[in-house]
Amino acid sequence: MDIVIGIDIGGTKTKIGLVDKEGNCLEQTFFRTKEYPDLDNYQNKIKTMVDELIGELRETPNILGCGIGAPNASSKRGTIENAANLLWKGTVPFLEKMREKMPMPMRIMNDASAAALGEMLFGRGKDMTDFIAITLGTGFGAGIVANGHLIDGYDGFAGELGHVDMTIGDGRLTGLGVEGGLEAYVSATGLKRTILYMQSQFMDESRFRSIAYKDLHGEDITKAAEEGDPIAIRAFDYTAKIMAQALANFTAFTQPEAFILMGGLVNSGKWILEPLERYLDQFLLQVYRGKVKILESGMEGKTAAICGAAALIWENHR
Amino acid sequence: MDIVIGIDIGGTKTKIGLVDKEGNCLEQTFFRTKEYPDLDNYQNKIKTMVDELIGELRETPNILGCGIGAPNASSKRGTIENAANLLWKGTVPFLEKMREKMPMPMRIMNDASAAALGEMLFGRGKDMTDFIAITLGTGFGAGIVANGHLIDGYDGFAGELGHVDMTIGDGRLTGLGVEGGLEAYVSATGLKRTILYMQSQFMDESRFRSIAYKDLHGEDITKAAEEGDPIAIRAFDYTAKIMAQALANFTAFTQPEAFILMGGLVNSGKWILEPLERYLDQFLLQVYRGKVKILESGMEGKTAAICGAAALIWENHR
Repeated sequence: MDIVIGIDIGGTKTKIGLVDKEGNCLEQTFFRTKEYPDLDNYQNKIKTMVDELIGELRETPNILGCGIGAPNASSKRGTIENAANLLWKGTVPFLEKMREKMPMPMRIMNDASAAALGEMLFGRGKDMTDFIAITLGTGFGAGIVANGHLIDGYDGFAGELGHVDMTIGDGRLTGLGVEGGLEAYVSATGLKRTILYMQSQFMDESRFRSIAYKDLHGEDITKAAEEGDPIAIRAFDYTAKIMAQALANFTAFTQPEAFILMGGLVNSGKWILEPLERYLDQFLLQVYRGKVKILESGMEGKTAAICGAAALIWENHR
Repeated sequence: MDIVIGIDIGGTKTKIGLVDKEGNCLEQTFFRTKEYPDLDNYQNKIKTMVDELIGELRETPNILGCGIGAPNASSKRGTIENAANLLWKGTVPFLEKMREKMPMPMRIMNDASAAALGEMLFGRGKDMTDFIAITLGTGFGAGIVANGHLIDGYDGFAGELGHVDMTIGDGRLTGLGVEGGLEAYVSATGLKRTILYMQSQFMDESRFRSIAYKDLHGEDITKAAEEGDPIAIRAFDYTAKIMAQALANFTAFTQPEAFILMGGLVNSGKWILEPLERYLDQFLLQVYRGKVKILESGMEGKTAAICGAAALIWENHR
């Protein structure tokens, strides 16, 4: 049986799985990234866990290769560069070192781009040649597919749309210091910041008057909106409006058939999606109106990142 | 000898030329677009002029096909749709009708995308897989090349970057009514509007205090800057700053190796290019800094649009 190893490197967890050609994740596991601050130890841990996973399969698989999704990864150089949420600083020659431990075909890519490739091979992007996958988690990530191919960029850093300057709203700084940067508004973190902002702007009663920023959770905001909390409802509307403005601009770029959304913020469902569609229709240039779909990811949440990473290798076996 | 017919349809002039495989325009001519408000007459006029041009060649050529660049053209449907500066309204099935008169391989594309293809085959983009060509004339046009291919978009309308909402400056409306739209600032027209704006903002003495908007010409603004006119210098700086902000955002999208600039505004040379490079370096995300070039077009001004159009056919003969 042909199998690809998929690895998703996150600031909190490192997820590893074995993925078949239909995008099924047959075995999976994870460990805490921050427990391995030394790169060599970290990669040894990966190797050990991969061997364990393979041992759990009933038959000995034919391993085609290993795909890796990571923040700030350059697909062209095989490096992870200045990733804010990882412990390894500077430019890390991740692929070169990993190949020494597991000699096999191996690719690394920005995690959002890997997610887009996963959608293209296994998810909602299957029948599309032009779409943009957007991950709305702690940050805002994007993977752009045009003409049926993922866009890499000159040295592998295309799609950093979270740091596009929207010069909009109240001029918030992103983690990278971009003033008015998109992900300061449109992400799980951005929504929490907006809960504070709305309390500063309006005097509405709200359950959030007695909850500190650090204790805020996305699910609570959704629940509050369902109970009619005006600050929660205002926050979703504001987030959706800025997101719609951004998607309207992105549409003028590659004219995608759809935006495929995934990540924590999407779990808020209609509270974000309904105002998003309404504003998008308002902001789109006439030539694009009615032609751009908003879709939720077709990948199962838990294994989407692993399958996306595995897609880096499966892409070459079609 | 193999030859491609290149046609550039503009609001003012329609240019026609015969282009060889090195991108040399062997014969060329033009006529005034507005003198042929009827599509059938217009296309007959094209046919007549093409025949005349071919007659002027010393040997009978082997015509490989005809490439056409036009505003608001959909490459996928072969149509020109709601072009503000053309007399034919609504959706015009241009390619279908033209093929009836000249049966041969024929393609049509947005003029800025055609220009990008021209740069890719014959100009500064020859050795690049990722660049964005920008035309700075009456409006702001863009053609995006990524992974070595021009990006078409879902139904052929990618690259309408002139209507990206920058929500910046003084919130000008574009011709399409987009508030704060890029081409209201960054284009030959935008620069003239900025000459007025700067006079409204500052009390500097300037030669432009006695020139009305309709009498303003791009060359005069360059000349004034050279003579130290403070309004002209402020206008270039303001234009360059907004353009740099836009290019920094575009870089986060497809991460081009270079922006290749062409069109009237580029003739202002250092007055636009020097502040543009300075601001771009300031606005780019660190991961992109020092990796993005600003280049002037490698195509000869007069025939660039014709060669770009011809590139639509030459692309398939490489």
